Amino acid sequence: MSFAELWAGLLPIGRDPGSGGYLRYSWSTVDASLRGWFAAEAAARGLTVETDGNGNLWAWWGDPAAGNAVVTGSHFDSVPHGGAYDGPLGIASAFLALDELRANGVPPDRPLGIVAFVEEEGSRFGVACLGSKLLTGTLDPATALALRDRDGVTLAEAMDDAGADPSLVGPDPERLSRVGALVELHIEQGRGLTAPVGVASAIWPHGRWRIDVTGEANHAGTTRMADRRDPMLTFAFAVLAANKEARLQGAHATVGRVRVEPNATNAVPARVQGWLDARAADEETLDKVVDAIGRRATERADRDGTTVAIVPESTSGAVEFDAALRDRIAALLDAPVLPTGAGHDAGVLSAYVPTAMLFVRNPTGVSHSPAEYATDDDCVAGVAALTRVLRELAWV
Amino acid sequence: MSFAELWAGLLPIGRDPGSGGYLRYSWSTVDASLRGWFAAEAAARGLTVETDGNGNLWAWWGDPAAGNAVVTGSHFDSVPHGGAYDGPLGIASAFLALDELRANGVPPDRPLGIVAFVEEEGSRFGVACLGSKLLTGTLDPATALALRDRDGVTLAEAMDDAGADPSLVGPDPERLSRVGALVELHIEQGRGLTAPVGVASAIWPHGRWRIDVTGEANHAGTTRMADRRDPMLTFAFAVLAANKEARLQGAHATVGRVRVEPNATNAVPARVQGWLDARAADEETLDKVVDAIGRRATERADRDGTTVAIVPESTSGAVEFDAALRDRIAALLDAPVLPTGAGHDAGVLSAYVPTAMLFVRNPTGVSHSPAEYATDDDCVAGVAALTRVLRELAWV
Repeated sequence: MSFAELWAGLLPIGRDPGSGGYLRYSWSTVDASLRGWFAAEAAARGLTVETDGNGNLWAWWGDPAAGNAVVTGSHFDSVPHGGAYDGPLGIASAFLALDELRANGVPPDRPLGIVAFVEEEGSRFGVACLGSKLLTGTLDPATALALRDRDGVTLAEAMDDAGADPSLVGPDPERLSRVGALVELHIEQGRGLTAPVGVASAIWPHGRWRIDVTGEANHAGTTRMADRRDPMLTFAFAVLAANKEARLQGAHATVGRVRVEPNATNAVPARVQGWLDARAADEETLDKVVDAIGRRATERADRDGTTVAIVPESTSGAVEFDAALRDRIAALLDAPVLPTGAGHDAGVLSAYVPTAMLFVRNPTGVSHSPAEYATDDDCVAGVAALTRVLRELAWV
Repeated sequence: MSFAELWAGLLPIGRDPGSGGYLRYSWSTVDASLRGWFAAEAAARGLTVETDGNGNLWAWWGDPAAGNAVVTGSHFDSVPHGGAYDGPLGIASAFLALDELRANGVPPDRPLGIVAFVEEEGSRFGVACLGSKLLTGTLDPATALALRDRDGVTLAEAMDDAGADPSLVGPDPERLSRVGALVELHIEQGRGLTAPVGVASAIWPHGRWRIDVTGEANHAGTTRMADRRDPMLTFAFAVLAANKEARLQGAHATVGRVRVEPNATNAVPARVQGWLDARAADEETLDKVVDAIGRRATERADRDGTTVAIVPESTSGAVEFDAALRDRIAALLDAPVLPTGAGHDAGVLSAYVPTAMLFVRNPTGVSHSPAEYATDDDCVAGVAALTRVLRELAWV
């Protein structure tokens, strides 16, 4: 099966006809379709499928109980109206690489697995890399199960509705101990890669902070400007401060999500919440940027008669991928090595097992958008590179 | 029946247990409950109830076909999580005033009516004074029926779902010609009134403009700051510019509602929409403020690589209430006369019939908030004042 053929089967699942982007949220009916697609592709190749207690999917060639497995894969879920490639490209490429390897007729010396992690984007329950964090025990299961989506549904309720048992959520050290190496293939998400395929060196430290601004709801027509305590002003100032501080420090800061109460045209809001995504090349710089944003927002809140709190929601330290594995793969592929500002499940796993990432070139640098794309030729080059890496690792 | 008794029957309808504020949207099931309350109170007093083609409710003492009717009333609907008084106080006070007048045993010389206008706040379909604008022909029926709420439901669909016939929507000059005078009682919405009851002189010109900022969706982690076209920055700048320009001109400007696409923490937005509510003592000042906001937002958009459009959604010119009626009422009540920044159905009607407004004191000036309130004593004073005004007008 060609890349184009396999890819065509995934494209319609969860695509919004209006935006052309994807609404692939964890534990949704769309997610169930994607899980069905995974199970069908695995079955067609004679692979054994397991769903772990956190909902991550595993397909095996060989017996994982033998240990020291080589695992590849990524995630299905998208940001709201995200692109087709971010996540699914790594899973589709894994199946296609296995096709190449199986065509040789020789089973691998190490078990070979394909994984699909739950909710990498954090788009439904707000915590990025949810599935890999639960698997590794980086995230407390009780905390996770109580997370709520925008409609107030908890993770526990969503799993239950989807037919999964929430009581099984939690760290799974035994399953993790079977994994000897993880290689995640992913579309590059900036303009950093000019070759078709590259190898990751590191992930920038990054995090999400909620900017909670509280003021006083009031009538937009009758309340004198001097009598207002308008949280929208403090929020707007924080947005501009975040942009300025990030630029000054060579970091990245984004406010991409906002929630306003009551969100009425003719009412001064009672409360505005914004979500700050900030990333930098090192943790000291990241701390400096977030501190500066908080300090400037607080000064403005004093003038606006509002209060502001910067609440950390999730933070991830810097990740340096396994140096030996990275160098071995880069030499094998003669591919460039580059860092990324994006978080990945491979980053979470890297604290537990030797982990590497392959990037496929993104010609426009656009990601988290319906306009995200990679050429078919580069995707095919990605499959070929992944095939070489898996052959190198799983056959002694 | 006392004010407190009648009021207690209204308080639970549409109250959100979380905020304590009201979610009373036109053509909702809560709206149906409020309509049922109106019909029951009218029936208990032997009044005839009519629903006009636009859904406005009318209860009559005497035959409206006789013409030159005296009408009082207001609206039931709220802003999201608004207060109990804004609107319903005028309807409840109308029933209580009729109780006082009926106790005299003498029918009025002019028909006496109570009106409840549909969607004064514009909280569901975005156009303030929807019911009174349709009645008077100020708003085109086809335009109105195509208005959509936040879930994409049109006014036509919402009316149909509520059992009302959308084909009847439109101007109703015959019904309007029966009205000889309109008196709307309303809670004051600033701190402008220190007596229990006041009389309106004028409504500031005001309007709503949509601020449409379009940028380019992208990944928050991997997109360099210099490569971004982030509409959130332009929006934030416009919010601060609106505040500054309004203060400079002694006007009011508010951005209380925001919509972000895709509204994801880890995505630079594709688009941010904000709604600007602006009001000023005269139209020249209002134009100057809105023009300045648009100019400054456009300059910022050029720097951000975004585009911005300021789209008028609804505007209302200055209203001077009927001078003869205002002076007659102010003299009768010995009450202060004051202008307001808030729009009202009485302002829409004032272009067609002699119209006046009574204001009941707002001790905190808070409105469009769960914290909005008036004392029972002031509400009772409002009923007494309305009673005196209706007796003066409807009995020759």
